[in-house]
Amino acid sequence: MDRLTHFDEKGRPKMVDVSEKKITLREAVASGIISMKPETLGMIMNKQIVKGNVLEVAKVAGIMAAKKTSDLIPMCHPLEITHVEMLFNPREADSCIEIESKVKIRGRTGVEMEALVAVSTAALTIYDMCKAVDKGMVISQVKLVRKSGGRSGEYQAKRF
Amino acid sequence: MDRLTHFDEKGRPKMVDVSEKKITLREAVASGIISMKPETLGMIMNKQIVKGNVLEVAKVAGIMAAKKTSDLIPMCHPLEITHVEMLFNPREADSCIEIESKVKIRGRTGVEMEALVAVSTAALTIYDMCKAVDKGMVISQVKLVRKSGGRSGEYQAKRF
Amino acid sequence: MDRLTHFDEKGRPKMVDVSEKKITLREAVASGIISMKPETLGMIMNKQIVKGNVLEVAKVAGIMAAKKTSDLIPMCHPLEITHVEMLFNPREADSCIEIESKVKIRGRTGVEMEALVAVSTAALTIYDMCKAVDKGMVISQVKLVRKSGGRSGEYQAKRF
Amino acid sequence: MDRLTHFDEKGRPKMVDVSEKKITLREAVASGIISMKPETLGMIMNKQIVKGNVLEVAKVAGIMAAKKTSDLIPMCHPLEITHVEMLFNPREADSCIEIESKVKIRGRTGVEMEALVAVSTAALTIYDMCKAVDKGMVISQVKLVRKSGGRSGEYQAKRF
Amino acid sequence: MDRLTHFDEKGRPKMVDVSEKKITLREAVASGIISMKPETLGMIMNKQIVKGNVLEVAKVAGIMAAKKTSDLIPMCHPLEITHVEMLFNPREADSCIEIESKVKIRGRTGVEMEALVAVSTAALTIYDMCKAVDKGMVISQVKLVRKSGGRSGEYQAKRF
Amino acid sequence: MDRLTHFDEKGRPKMVDVSEKKITLREAVASGIISMKPETLGMIMNKQIVKGNVLEVAKVAGIMAAKKTSDLIPMCHPLEITHVEMLFNPREADSCIEIESKVKIRGRTGVEMEALVAVSTAALTIYDMCKAVDKGMVISQVKLVRKSGGRSGEYQAKRF
Repeated sequence: MDRLTHFDEKGRPKMVDVSEKKITLREAVASGIISMKPETLGMIMNKQIVKGNVLEVAKVAGIMAAKKTSDLIPMCHPLEITHVEMLFNPREADSCIEIESKVKIRGRTGVEMEALVAVSTAALTIYDMCKAVDKGMVISQVKLVRKSGGRSGEYQAKRF
Repeated sequence: MDRLTHFDEKGRPKMVDVSEKKITLREAVASGIISMKPETLGMIMNKQIVKGNVLEVAKVAGIMAAKKTSDLIPMCHPLEITHVEMLFNPREADSCIEIESKVKIRGRTGVEMEALVAVSTAALTIYDMCKAVDKGMVISQVKLVRKSGGRSGEYQAKRF
Repeated sequence: MDRLTHFDEKGRPKMVDVSEKKITLREAVASGIISMKPETLGMIMNKQIVKGNVLEVAKVAGIMAAKKTSDLIPMCHPLEITHVEMLFNPREADSCIEIESKVKIRGRTGVEMEALVAVSTAALTIYDMCKAVDKGMVISQVKLVRKSGGRSGEYQAKRF
Repeated sequence: MDRLTHFDEKGRPKMVDVSEKKITLREAVASGIISMKPETLGMIMNKQIVKGNVLEVAKVAGIMAAKKTSDLIPMCHPLEITHVEMLFNPREADSCIEIESKVKIRGRTGVEMEALVAVSTAALTIYDMCKAVDKGMVISQVKLVRKSGGRSGEYQAKRF
Repeated sequence: MDRLTHFDEKGRPKMVDVSEKKITLREAVASGIISMKPETLGMIMNKQIVKGNVLEVAKVAGIMAAKKTSDLIPMCHPLEITHVEMLFNPREADSCIEIESKVKIRGRTGVEMEALVAVSTAALTIYDMCKAVDKGMVISQVKLVRKSGGRSGEYQAKRF
Repeated sequence: MDRLTHFDEKGRPKMVDVSEKKITLREAVASGIISMKPETLGMIMNKQIVKGNVLEVAKVAGIMAAKKTSDLIPMCHPLEITHVEMLFNPREADSCIEIESKVKIRGRTGVEMEALVAVSTAALTIYDMCKAVDKGMVISQVKLVRKSGGRSGEYQAKRF
């Protein structure tokens, strides 16, 4: 198993040196789930009442958060990301909403963290907008789905 | 069931008016879990190798993120939080780390989102610092544990 | 005419001292207009095509920008604003959209700048989202409509 | 007329994918006007009293805001801008100040929004610094003057 | 000697709990020095050439940085500061500029860090604006001059 | 001696145009000192009591601040820095801690300011975390140690 790359020889945290890495197209997809009461999901999805706005606001929040990743995660490099998109998949049978983000860059390091931050922030925004009616919502299964580009190459989550 | 408070009568998003709410001591506790390979947990916990730094960095990240909550979550009010603390509880049996945050304020609105943002960002920071050795880590069970203060009073998560 | 309050006796910029001002409920309303081609307005308003989303995104951007006011305007105090709301009024006859914001606080200084920043940023967001089809859009009439609260009392724009 | 590029096929907002665009030199010029009482303009311009500082502060605010564009405008890409400059042209006959910004980059997407954000924020800063003596100031004619670089090529505002 | 207040019993960093502290008027003054070549000082002070702008820009930077203190210093509380002012005192005999800041608040905790951040950032801004002609500038003697308010009461630096 | 590059012909501040500069590997090293009472240094270094955490938190703060440089220093360009590392060297004989940072980039302009901001913020963080026991700490000798890359080439501080 490799060394943890964010620590130098003496275990001190640092921002990994990517100066010598190649600029390539890199892509990452992350996903997560927010579970809630069936009534809450109904209120979110019922366009008559809330006009689908919870998910619109969550999407904007997720996209904006992806851009703040290096401001939130201490050892992340600031990156000129070239694309972010987010999908929301309501699953009535499980009374949850599945959130997926895709982030792209032409850069020296990957965008896994940007994709994960987008998913987490979108989920937290859904929590915030619905907490008056359902404080028991739970965010789960936040993970990297796949990544491509860069020296370490392709990654695909196993059970997905 | 109440109306979603972040939407006005026509379903348009707004930042809820808390001008008339009372200033009281409000407290929120949130928690979450990040699961990983046993080897990854071992590397984090093994002070010989990494000197416990992953959790130190994650703690700082969580505390700093709590202060950015209103910058991340669109409808959150900017708040002068008066306290943040974070606990990390490694659970070898489950090969995961449990993260808990507590946030306090004397203000007109609660700090649930601040506590949840702290937990999520700490978990994401652990992911970032260890992703070179374990891309399959998963963040789960991010939820509000309890809150107190304010008109809506005490909340305690059920299955906790 | 009073002295410019952001300058001290020698004309040096400073952040005005509001330590001795009273905490009162303060409110400000600002408005502005973004003019565009009739086709552009049609595309924004046509829910079949764009689902009203341009205005949803602009609203979120305006609310979030209000919270960043003291980060943008050098001499503005950081403030715990308690309410922001935004209205969009499409005026087909004039081929423009009128934007209005209302901001409230219980604090030591007013929220005029927060209301103006919200309107400006919402207008700029509309420009950004539609510039692929209409680079000639123009933002105008950005002004304070009224304010209340504080020592200087009520203000109401004349020609409004 | 083209599709609004910030929306995907189903009208959902996204950050446009510019991964395949070429890196070229791109430039944008924007302008705007802030109108005020003649006395206010006199106070700003009279170096004996305020030493030209209102415009100095506004210039710094505009330059700093250009760098925050992707943090303010939800669908804007984070960009390593290579140049910002601002000009202020007081027009006594019209009792207003004309503000102009120029922004440059070598990148995959244009800097129109950066130029517009710089002008708007400079105008808002002038408002903030003078509002103690003139709450009736109005910001108008905020628009893109010209842009160059990129696939869509040259743009020049018509009536300018 | 007291315990380091930013660490709990087990030495873990936390944001100190100030929920039970009283709201009082608190004030802090900090200062620092930036030393440079006599020619550099001459260029800064010579209004014919640079119109005093280096110090104007540094002043704006210092004031804006004071507002970002809780975003920079991990364990600082976010605070609604009510006043910031900055003074620059060029000392030709020592070929340096002395920088002083004063910050005020009515709050539960002091503003020492805000005053120190303002001084440091103003000094760094002077460095940045003059580094093309003098890379050897040195920032020194950054310290708290005095503070008042709060339980710990008055503090006055000894050798000042 | 050269002109101050942040001012145009009439002495107005601007962000220097680096559009035509070459992308090269650029590196900067900065350092600084924070002096304190021997007891304070002892408390920081005594792992039994504080587990080395003051320096861990200061390191994270310094790295995160380097990424905020263009947000703090008005005329700095936003940069995709590729590496930051920080070293702390406690000097018991002088009762101080020496702080050193190294920043790297492949870009059109240097990273001197990023290195200086990292050092300053780490020093301020040490002050913040220890100020309960030692308000008299002083930050000194903050300077550029060396830089390489770019047209102006190598720089090495003389008395170091």
